[in-house]
Amino acid sequence: MLLSGGLDSATVLAIARAQGWACWALSFRYGQRHAIELEAAERVARALGAVEHRVADVDLRWIGGSALTADVAVPKDRPVHNIGAMGADIPVTYVPARNTLFLSYALAWAEVLGARDLFAGMNALDYSGYPDCRPEFLNAFEKLARLGTRAGALGEEWKIHAPLIAMTKAEIIREGTRLGVDYRLTHSCYDPIGERACGRCDSCVLRRRGFEAAGIADPTEYAG
Amino acid sequence: MLLSGGLDSATVLAIARAQGWACWALSFRYGQRHAIELEAAERVARALGAVEHRVADVDLRWIGGSALTADVAVPKDRPVHNIGAMGADIPVTYVPARNTLFLSYALAWAEVLGARDLFAGMNALDYSGYPDCRPEFLNAFEKLARLGTRAGALGEEWKIHAPLIAMTKAEIIREGTRLGVDYRLTHSCYDPIGERACGRCDSCVLRRRGFEAAGIADPTEYAG
Repeated sequence: MLLSGGLDSATVLAIARAQGWACWALSFRYGQRHAIELEAAERVARALGAVEHRVADVDLRWIGGSALTADVAVPKDRPVHNIGAMGADIPVTYVPARNTLFLSYALAWAEVLGARDLFAGMNALDYSGYPDCRPEFLNAFEKLARLGTRAGALGEEWKIHAPLIAMTKAEIIREGTRLGVDYRLTHSCYDPIGERACGRCDSCVLRRRGFEAAGIADPTEYAG
Repeated sequence: MLLSGGLDSATVLAIARAQGWACWALSFRYGQRHAIELEAAERVARALGAVEHRVADVDLRWIGGSALTADVAVPKDRPVHNIGAMGADIPVTYVPARNTLFLSYALAWAEVLGARDLFAGMNALDYSGYPDCRPEFLNAFEKLARLGTRAGALGEEWKIHAPLIAMTKAEIIREGTRLGVDYRLTHSCYDPIGERACGRCDSCVLRRRGFEAAGIADPTEYAG
């Protein structure tokens, strides 16, 4: 299971646990500007009963090309109706091939563990225009996993579970709240100010609107 | 272009250069037992005129599960007709999801460079039973690349060039020799003894037989 420490992947972990899965959680140190989300991932993994939580080092800074890994400004205060737009509007926070890379690491670990089920928090509605959060992408990755692994060569099928894929942020928050997720443990902000969420990047905007739309009090402390 | 420093990827680089491509070469420090192959990659990239050669750190030791990254013995002196067998006979030197991971890194770098063509040395004949060296795998990766990148979302196509896919080792060596590859610069051995190739692992066995079958003198110094 990919666990970023954000709201979405915390909810995925809660859903998988409620379905009875034993979960091995994987996070990445990929040259983020901040390590706060890795601390959040560790807290979330512990709180929701992951069997194990590992952090893989994935250096993407040498590649550059994203506001999350290079010296490019994170956009602020974008109107929420623009955030989900596709194509030319893919945001500067898009990290090239990130989900392909992250799922590849999860695939490698799963193969060693003997697992055949990957869980991830991709979401096709509030996905901020990232191409690698679409259902077609996940289907293509399942096929790649079948063709590119020892297990697949022996005839076994891989499944990527993306239970949030068709949910709104409000629905995700309601479902997580129902399952007892403490969202104070999670971290969503692309550009935190000290320990606090900025409140103005795409991720903060989507999170705030999600709590509002869900009618649930947002426990996040925002700086702005 | 994936460049391991081995015989195959050196030949791919020579082929791509002969076809007129400007090549950006990518190698990986992935917890191999030996760094000799990275030195070979650097020599090969320089000798064959790559625009740039980068080495990405990909820590796979925490995953374990392969003789190339964990404390598992590399098999020696296997009969050559067994080496290409599939399925249950996938060798212990198989690294889980390795080509998926390596191609994902290449994809990320290519996207930042504005390239749409990846080159790799996969080979379906002498491939030692690795599932991620088959043409179907490469086709599935092209599709994934189209779906999972900004360029793909904008309608551009990705192409993985695997010019060795249907060649025997002897044919690869003949073609590389014709194009002026100095195979003394390359390194194939899974388990070198000091600076020398062991001469007995699957990779050495395939290399030796390849030179024999090509009728070309093997410049490699083998320890055994």
